Amino acid sequence: MNQDYIKPSEWSLIEEGFEPGRVKSSESLFSIGNGAMGQRANFEEQYSGPTFQGSYIAGVYYPDKTRVGWWKNGYPEYFAKVLNAPNWIGIDVEINGEALDLQQCTSVKDYRRELNMKEGWYQRSFKATLKNGAEVSVTATRFLSIDIDEVGAIKFEVTPLNGEAEIKFTPYVDGGITNEDSNWDDKFWDVSETGTQGDYAYVRSKTMKTGFDVCTGMRAALLLDGKLTEATPAASKTDFKAQLSYTVKVAANSTAALVKMAGYVTSMNHKSEDLRKASEAVIGKAVEIGFDELKNMQAKSWAAIWEMADITIEGDVKAQQGIRFNIFQLNQTYLGKDARLNIGPKGFTGEKYGGSTYWDTEAYCLPFYMATKDAQVARNLLKYRYNHLEKAIENAEKLGFTNGAALYPMVTMNGEECHNEWEITFEEIHRNGAIAFAIFNYVRFTGDYSYVPEMGLEVLIGIARFWHQRANYSAQKDKYVILGVTGPNEYENNINNNWYTNYIAKWCIDYTNKQIEKVKAEYGADYTRIMEKAKLTEAEVAEWMKVADNMYFPYSDEHGVYLQQDGFLDKEMIKVADLDPKQRPINQHWSWDRILRSPYIKQADTLQGFYFFEEDFSREELEKHFDFYEPFTVHESSLSPCVHSIQAAVLNRMDQAYTFYLRTSRLDLDDYNKEVHEGLHITSMAGTWMSIVEGFGGMRVKNDMLSLEPRIPEQWKGYSFKVNFRDTILKVEVKQDETVVKVEKGAAMTLNVNGKVLEVSSEKAVTA
Amino acid sequence: MNQDYIKPSEWSLIEEGFEPGRVKSSESLFSIGNGAMGQRANFEEQYSGPTFQGSYIAGVYYPDKTRVGWWKNGYPEYFAKVLNAPNWIGIDVEINGEALDLQQCTSVKDYRRELNMKEGWYQRSFKATLKNGAEVSVTATRFLSIDIDEVGAIKFEVTPLNGEAEIKFTPYVDGGITNEDSNWDDKFWDVSETGTQGDYAYVRSKTMKTGFDVCTGMRAALLLDGKLTEATPAASKTDFKAQLSYTVKVAANSTAALVKMAGYVTSMNHKSEDLRKASEAVIGKAVEIGFDELKNMQAKSWAAIWEMADITIEGDVKAQQGIRFNIFQLNQTYLGKDARLNIGPKGFTGEKYGGSTYWDTEAYCLPFYMATKDAQVARNLLKYRYNHLEKAIENAEKLGFTNGAALYPMVTMNGEECHNEWEITFEEIHRNGAIAFAIFNYVRFTGDYSYVPEMGLEVLIGIARFWHQRANYSAQKDKYVILGVTGPNEYENNINNNWYTNYIAKWCIDYTNKQIEKVKAEYGADYTRIMEKAKLTEAEVAEWMKVADNMYFPYSDEHGVYLQQDGFLDKEMIKVADLDPKQRPINQHWSWDRILRSPYIKQADTLQGFYFFEEDFSREELEKHFDFYEPFTVHESSLSPCVHSIQAAVLNRMDQAYTFYLRTSRLDLDDYNKEVHEGLHITSMAGTWMSIVEGFGGMRVKNDMLSLEPRIPEQWKGYSFKVNFRDTILKVEVKQDETVVKVEKGAAMTLNVNGKVLEVSSEKAVTA
Repeated sequence: MNQDYIKPSEWSLIEEGFEPGRVKSSESLFSIGNGAMGQRANFEEQYSGPTFQGSYIAGVYYPDKTRVGWWKNGYPEYFAKVLNAPNWIGIDVEINGEALDLQQCTSVKDYRRELNMKEGWYQRSFKATLKNGAEVSVTATRFLSIDIDEVGAIKFEVTPLNGEAEIKFTPYVDGGITNEDSNWDDKFWDVSETGTQGDYAYVRSKTMKTGFDVCTGMRAALLLDGKLTEATPAASKTDFKAQLSYTVKVAANSTAALVKMAGYVTSMNHKSEDLRKASEAVIGKAVEIGFDELKNMQAKSWAAIWEMADITIEGDVKAQQGIRFNIFQLNQTYLGKDARLNIGPKGFTGEKYGGSTYWDTEAYCLPFYMATKDAQVARNLLKYRYNHLEKAIENAEKLGFTNGAALYPMVTMNGEECHNEWEITFEEIHRNGAIAFAIFNYVRFTGDYSYVPEMGLEVLIGIARFWHQRANYSAQKDKYVILGVTGPNEYENNINNNWYTNYIAKWCIDYTNKQIEKVKAEYGADYTRIMEKAKLTEAEVAEWMKVADNMYFPYSDEHGVYLQQDGFLDKEMIKVADLDPKQRPINQHWSWDRILRSPYIKQADTLQGFYFFEEDFSREELEKHFDFYEPFTVHESSLSPCVHSIQAAVLNRMDQAYTFYLRTSRLDLDDYNKEVHEGLHITSMAGTWMSIVEGFGGMRVKNDMLSLEPRIPEQWKGYSFKVNFRDTILKVEVKQDETVVKVEKGAAMTLNVNGKVLEVSSEKAVTA
Repeated sequence: MNQDYIKPSEWSLIEEGFEPGRVKSSESLFSIGNGAMGQRANFEEQYSGPTFQGSYIAGVYYPDKTRVGWWKNGYPEYFAKVLNAPNWIGIDVEINGEALDLQQCTSVKDYRRELNMKEGWYQRSFKATLKNGAEVSVTATRFLSIDIDEVGAIKFEVTPLNGEAEIKFTPYVDGGITNEDSNWDDKFWDVSETGTQGDYAYVRSKTMKTGFDVCTGMRAALLLDGKLTEATPAASKTDFKAQLSYTVKVAANSTAALVKMAGYVTSMNHKSEDLRKASEAVIGKAVEIGFDELKNMQAKSWAAIWEMADITIEGDVKAQQGIRFNIFQLNQTYLGKDARLNIGPKGFTGEKYGGSTYWDTEAYCLPFYMATKDAQVARNLLKYRYNHLEKAIENAEKLGFTNGAALYPMVTMNGEECHNEWEITFEEIHRNGAIAFAIFNYVRFTGDYSYVPEMGLEVLIGIARFWHQRANYSAQKDKYVILGVTGPNEYENNINNNWYTNYIAKWCIDYTNKQIEKVKAEYGADYTRIMEKAKLTEAEVAEWMKVADNMYFPYSDEHGVYLQQDGFLDKEMIKVADLDPKQRPINQHWSWDRILRSPYIKQADTLQGFYFFEEDFSREELEKHFDFYEPFTVHESSLSPCVHSIQAAVLNRMDQAYTFYLRTSRLDLDDYNKEVHEGLHITSMAGTWMSIVEGFGGMRVKNDMLSLEPRIPEQWKGYSFKVNFRDTILKVEVKQDETVVKVEKGAAMTLNVNGKVLEVSSEKAVTA
């Protein structure tokens, strides 16, 4: 459903009114996370209506079977799945013996959800009348602590409205969960133990095959009108569930509250044998701090994140809400503390895409984390790939490449390929380019070259070797060609000479060659070590360069543009605007063969190249290509509109840039792709950030210097963003008539604003 | 394994010596069938070594789940599986209390298998020493009756060699079977009832989902030195199995024989409630006839088949054995009695390809059945597709086609598509052309035009409509193009302008147009009925013709050949001969992406077009194309060498033609593709027949007249074949120095031999 029920608000998502048809969508939109775990906005209490249950633990996955009818050589052994983890939020609630279940109530009023992005908490409140006539007011507040990232806190408050009521709270932890996407109702967890001790209850479970060991623990307490009671819970357990029960009589308009501290400790961070102790310890710490104080700490931690990452927009609440929602979700998903983790396309909000790492990280997410966090966070993202280099070489070997050529997987959890469509896995090889480009981009932005001799150059060599082997000489063209690829536009498969792929392949070889020279000149010891380790000779590099220097690029003289691929112009060139709107999105209406032979572009492809390599082309060339490709782009990937927004801004087409901006920033809020119930598009949210900072703000790094060329949509009074450029925190404020750049923290620096080189320091702002 | 253990023999397959590693291969090679059921050469007695159990019932299938990770619009709901059916052959044998099991015996001597193709039976014999010291000689003979095609007969003889022995035979029927290819150890059969009554035992079972109801029944008898005993069996049963036991003391060198008559009756041919009665009746009939007499009848029935279908080769036993094996298997698989049945690529010899119907039937099998059977058999094969026309229209609609366009499925059991690789199902659309071509071919050969107005024209209209919609106008080329297809060479996917596909598409429209005109002129009532039913107007046909008249064909001026597809010459054009032999077959050594971007051709593609449409091209053109494409052809499809053999013969390259002939005729016997254990390549066996009759014999129909242009490999003294041409049975005998054509039965006729028009009759043979 394409929806717009989320109320505009600068700092919050707000939903009003209970509509069962929206529940799954809201479960995605109101998701919470703290980088280590995540939780869809499922109800704590029982709910018999349609729901999509999801609790996720960062890094925990399952290698599901990938058997398909027709196996092809090189197919991976498994498809990684992000796993729904044991339920830690559950609190069954009974009022006078009847279960509270919104699907069963005779009336639900004043239903309201709020996701408070400023302070990082989620609250749901409503008034309900049960079948037994009891009327209650309910407020449930919860958050996943940033400060103690193994703990979530819930306060569930019930106020009887029409007379005294007996209220029974049964908080529980439950290992008997499944995945929505399990193929044959498979179970992925073995529950080994459940138990209770006083007000503590726990479930020990382990993922099958991968053996991630998890203790899901909780403690609960009962409050009456805000005061802690001495209530002793009744405990019980089954093979997979442990629960406590608190029963209390509550006078009309008095409030009973169940406070639950719960969460996961895992064998990724603790010894298996210490898990239960670790669980008790961390939950004990949270209980000691208390719900209210932990919530105050949460607000402070989020304030610190916002202090660095916030973007303000004046005069356009929906745009403001959109960008904050994107920044909030990115920070909920990945905080950069742990180099083993990465950013799944759906973060912690759904199962789709298996929660695994895609090229999204390098192509879309890196700039956001570079500019809004310490450089170490971005470096951790690069290091993730360095740690997987050996597996990338193995992956290339499986496909027949030799001599240390590396092909990074399209989808991965641990460095192994874990996707099994040949047209993606075997052919969407441009991902290798994005991983090399990210190294360049990191060095360009942070100025930290040390990464290249320490780790990056080895990655680059593996990638350059791959491209050298993957291209072949065409006698017909007297050029090197790259056949049989899928470009960023996945609505084409097995095409020849995808311009983007050919271009980035050539770029990778050129860039690697230059880094070898630079490391040789400036880091002699590293050079020797790397050359020996990689068994690389100058003669081999010379062979690579033949490919780079003689790469073929399809071009149309008639249109004056590079062609997305060979034969692109043979298609029936009907523009998107001339399609029957009922046929869209085409991926929900057309068969795959029809999509493949159509000219429609799922996401920026040739234009992605113009985005990465902007400096290689004139503005006129950009304009020509934009005008040629944009009319055929259907933007059915979440990663598409941001690139078009940035390029429209560069071309001063501010209306178009603004339209694309809204589409990218409110993709999930307004559910453009009619699938928000499956989860949020996390990685594309970094694209939203780019479309403001790089699109409207015109931020680039040119000649080792930060450069701005701010523009502003006419719909806005002003906007501002901050950037951490080499440890100087800059604030850029753009109004309709002027731009002010301030140093908020750190050393003075020189930057280029609208073509003028200026000095800015904490004492001296710059106005342009 | 590539093997040559089958002894050369003109009329039999013979294996000598017991090697467990060969068991699965021999189980395929020694398979028996009677058109209604089939049986791999599994042992009757217990066997604990590696084996691939397979009993198959024609037309019985299961719609298996096709869930894959990433669904695409238009994917079929299921993947049809041929099902391993209840075991009817099983006879457990105990000698002095020890189970006879060749894997457990201390010695196995004189092991021999024979598949007697002349008389249609299979026999296995050996001498074995058991662990308990007993030595026995065993001979097991079985066949599937052609005359009573619901029955198989087995005689299992045991002779103690070193002293009296107590022998216990336990014949059984067993519904507790599975498929080798079941994904998750799924069961596909529900067994509802088992039972015994006197010497009759049965299992009632039903396929899940499809509900094919089957009664598997048996009767047994014990013979001592050839005389029927009065032994009363001990009966027992489990939930899925029913068995009888006969125990007898046998003196040294006396022989105990267990005769078992068993088989299937199914709800395809009987009412469900009558199945048990039908089973008893048909098995009773076989028992009444008796094993020996039924075997005599079998020999007579096969003699009648050979009378029409045999090809003799003098002076080359391996070639002779090869062709007879091919003809034998084709007749075991399909006898043309039932228009609901068709010819699965593996017949009744394995599970691969799901036992379903492919374009193989029209492209390869039809000529064999036309020439060696009554025309009704070929007509039944065409009618099969006519009966599926509505489903083909539905299939096209699922992919977005309209207005009665028909796309026949790539793989089907009941007219629905049941394969789920998009690159095959959605794109290998040339199959539609083969189905149209078969109509042309049938009329050309049989002279029976009535099929066109009665049924064929409706099929042609659906197919022409499909091609008209599937092509699109390329402004760039000012021609119609067909984008995104897979041609017959499945080592290319999603290519543009596959010459073969474009050519057959144009041909289909042209041919349909001509048939509309002919039916209008000669079958007015049919014309009106068809045009009304199809809602076809002359204006629509004119639109089709625009496509046919302006089709694009990729061509290389440099090489003077049509290109297999756009961009073919960009590949690295290394000839097959220059590949490392260790890399072959490439489909077992290379990843799919590497195969796709290579120039290697799995099976005749452009050359397939030159085969179908030979008369459209000069011999020089054929030669150029053969010389261009043959060096890149790896023949990794069983359907490939026959076409190349025919064309080499046309070009008078008899050595090459002979090499291809051996490869096609002994593909399974010599296991060229290292996969015979999975089953035989049934449909390609018709290609072997073609390579003699059309290749060496040069048989064509030209200008409504049979035409011969015989050639003979120098390795042969002579060869002969028979052809039923419009009810005249011709025998063609080719020697090194002369060709003799005789009429064996039927009217005199005029034919063209080596360019001369001659009269031949039963009185007057022709010698050329």
